[in-house]
Amino acid sequence: MADDCIFCRIGRGEIDTPLLFQDDRVFVVRDIRPKAPKHLLIIPKEHLTSLADMDLGKEAILGHLLIVAREMAKQEGVTRSGYRLVINQGPDSGQELAHLHLHLLAGRRLGAMG
Amino acid sequence: MADDCIFCRIGRGEIDTPLLFQDDRVFVVRDIRPKAPKHLLIIPKEHLTSLADMDLGKEAILGHLLIVAREMAKQEGVTRSGYRLVINQGPDSGQELAHLHLHLLAGRRLGAMG
Repeated sequence: MADDCIFCRIGRGEIDTPLLFQDDRVFVVRDIRPKAPKHLLIIPKEHLTSLADMDLGKEAILGHLLIVAREMAKQEGVTRSGYRLVINQGPDSGQELAHLHLHLLAGRRLGAMG
Repeated sequence: MADDCIFCRIGRGEIDTPLLFQDDRVFVVRDIRPKAPKHLLIIPKEHLTSLADMDLGKEAILGHLLIVAREMAKQEGVTRSGYRLVINQGPDSGQELAHLHLHLLAGRRLGAMG
């Protein structure tokens, strides 16, 4: 946990943001600046800053992020129409917050990947 | 394994494509139509068609895809400059091949996620 990290604060319930889902390891919110009609963020509760800083024992939580994303796609009704999952890492990617998160984009025909 | 799946055929060594990495579960190739200066595909050897079709026991292989991507980013020298990881699922995403794969895009300032 990091005191001043927005995602950690949401995870601790300090910021009044609707959670679309949570379990012991992750929570899901809508992006406040959506880039598509449906734009969800799947976020580990643990303050993992980046993939680069993670040890190899973290495969399970990473896989869990993707499985939860898959379940959220079902819940949002976009499994058939399709969706894109994105992890941004570092300056060239446009990563905005130093707490690992997975984007789920859906609800329209998506353009180029970057 | 699927007989006529390009990725399965590469995984079996039936198509002469340089592998940047492989282990017992995944292999890595360069995208033949790169969308960025560096565009790698991290591909499970098992013919997993989509996230939707996978059972929940597959978290480990999904996490492994991300860990291998992280290692490839190091190998390509883009950990500091940054990179984007993308999984496309279904029509709206532009997914082109029905064998799950993870894109790694890097080497320039990336644009919108979709």
